[in-house]
Amino acid sequence: MAEKKRGAQSVLLQNRPRVLSFASMAGPKEAEGPLAGTFDETFEDDTLGEKSWERGEAKMLEHTVDLALSKARVYADAVDAFLGGDLLNQIVSASYTARQLGAPFLGLYGACSTMAESLLLGALLVDGGYADRVVCATCSHFATAERQYRFPLELGNQRTPTAQWTVTGAGATLLGRGEAKGLPLRLTAATIGRVVDRQQTDINNMGAAMAPAAADTLLAHLRDLHRSVQDYDLIVTGDLGCVGYDLMCLLCEQKGVSLDGRYIDCGCEVFSPEQDAHAGGSGCGCSACCLNGWLFGRMLSGEIRRLLFLATGALMSTTTSQQGESIPAIAHAVTLEVEEG
Amino acid sequence: MAEKKRGAQSVLLQNRPRVLSFASMAGPKEAEGPLAGTFDETFEDDTLGEKSWERGEAKMLEHTVDLALSKARVYADAVDAFLGGDLLNQIVSASYTARQLGAPFLGLYGACSTMAESLLLGALLVDGGYADRVVCATCSHFATAERQYRFPLELGNQRTPTAQWTVTGAGATLLGRGEAKGLPLRLTAATIGRVVDRQQTDINNMGAAMAPAAADTLLAHLRDLHRSVQDYDLIVTGDLGCVGYDLMCLLCEQKGVSLDGRYIDCGCEVFSPEQDAHAGGSGCGCSACCLNGWLFGRMLSGEIRRLLFLATGALMSTTTSQQGESIPAIAHAVTLEVEEG
Repeated sequence: MAEKKRGAQSVLLQNRPRVLSFASMAGPKEAEGPLAGTFDETFEDDTLGEKSWERGEAKMLEHTVDLALSKARVYADAVDAFLGGDLLNQIVSASYTARQLGAPFLGLYGACSTMAESLLLGALLVDGGYADRVVCATCSHFATAERQYRFPLELGNQRTPTAQWTVTGAGATLLGRGEAKGLPLRLTAATIGRVVDRQQTDINNMGAAMAPAAADTLLAHLRDLHRSVQDYDLIVTGDLGCVGYDLMCLLCEQKGVSLDGRYIDCGCEVFSPEQDAHAGGSGCGCSACCLNGWLFGRMLSGEIRRLLFLATGALMSTTTSQQGESIPAIAHAVTLEVEEG
Repeated sequence: MAEKKRGAQSVLLQNRPRVLSFASMAGPKEAEGPLAGTFDETFEDDTLGEKSWERGEAKMLEHTVDLALSKARVYADAVDAFLGGDLLNQIVSASYTARQLGAPFLGLYGACSTMAESLLLGALLVDGGYADRVVCATCSHFATAERQYRFPLELGNQRTPTAQWTVTGAGATLLGRGEAKGLPLRLTAATIGRVVDRQQTDINNMGAAMAPAAADTLLAHLRDLHRSVQDYDLIVTGDLGCVGYDLMCLLCEQKGVSLDGRYIDCGCEVFSPEQDAHAGGSGCGCSACCLNGWLFGRMLSGEIRRLLFLATGALMSTTTSQQGESIPAIAHAVTLEVEEG
């Protein structure tokens, strides 16, 4: 049984759940970006041949989960739980994926923090012996997110400089028990985030809304586990973008924590400046497809041995934004480590 | 460490997490129904004095969580995790409650199955030693749900006979470790549901969409744990309503399982036939406020010693319904037992 210190948001996972496999898919814009070669599959048609973008998004997630399972040669009926969610109302992409997969399903909503939330809960289920194999997955799609959260694409609206570009992409991680055969990658610690809201109301500046939550969770993680930034080869936030990135550095510095040289943000990495994504990439799929390809790849190549994956989510809805509410944000963190044998 | 049988959806919780306290709130229509005396608080003004129904819904959930904590004399900073969600897009009621509470937050989306999903995951966190105290809570509101899922209330649309009435209500359960002081109520087993979709497309007949999922989870629960209906004093579904109730009985009978005399549905109980709720109550708040008042009360009075709480959710969105998709449904189950001392 795990031990939990009062007031702590973090736990060490005694049985160190293992990454059995991972997979990622990304859309046409992402396939032209700096991480082009790191996705398992990319596609040109952003409907994936379906009759709507929404069906296309679900197909992308379904296929990414299938890819992760097939890499580990695990059949769907050997999956004890699928933990996932997405940005669409009522997380329909994840629900349709769960319908196709047939595995027990735990639907999550953490906005763009969903990849970390699913890994965190999935790892606890495995660590505690409640599951042998869990799939943790999420996705986002530029076209479905734009029309749900902002404007119809056909309107051709101008974007503000702080706006981010929702990544069309998906990522899936298959986690299993520590003693299982798999990759030399383990999930060893997790920190559950708190909702932080600094009264930011501009829905075209998600980075500024989410950076305080990212800083809050990082500081809680370091405090709870008596760690420093130097204990990590890399700290990776989900989709703060360049505005949020700078704010995150500043907020941590104000607390005496320097991130210099060990911190990147997936939103800043997924597109090049020439791709006109303004403040960078965003969406559940942003950190999901970066982790389940590029970042795990860098870990397997020996470049990174210990990584803190800190995905961030902005929890507003269009209704609450229209009602003038500020944007609550959250960040969840998981520690991933290379461990041979 | 728990033991998990391959292919099983259910686990027995070795450390038998304890219900430390519970609380419920309900709106004006519910306060006129058969369960009137069982809620901790009811209110007349369905905005709860706020400027919008949405703010009112969040206030209701916030207050219900506060009530549960104050009954157990637990401060918010001693809560290791708040697990919750609701019916609104991006689960904003739960997010705002998490913002006010300040505790680590795990956002869930299981539609009307959320009370069971939050109890299930919360209990696993406590059972595994990852948390000492967790709050599991959810809510729904007739006015916010109607305008989000169906029509503006001002339109005065006619309702079909199979339509259900979204309960304005909230429920919160505080779970703690088995050895903690608290009520003689424990959560002893849990079954994670699978998505079941029988190609039902009528969004005014949620009961028919959800009954197959309820039957699937009940049968999995009985099979996994080698139990029969007779092992329970009462099996309670969330919000199938009278159409879904009959279907649930039929589907179980077809599999050789008779529910006769030991099965009720919160959606059938919360309103009287005179209240013109058509097929019955629905919404996350329906099963949540019935469990966290009426049902726990019946357990504490000795009337029910072992109860299976089986909340059901319909996972469609308005977008997918408009696109002609059928309704995926899910049900999660938890076993609650009276255990003195």
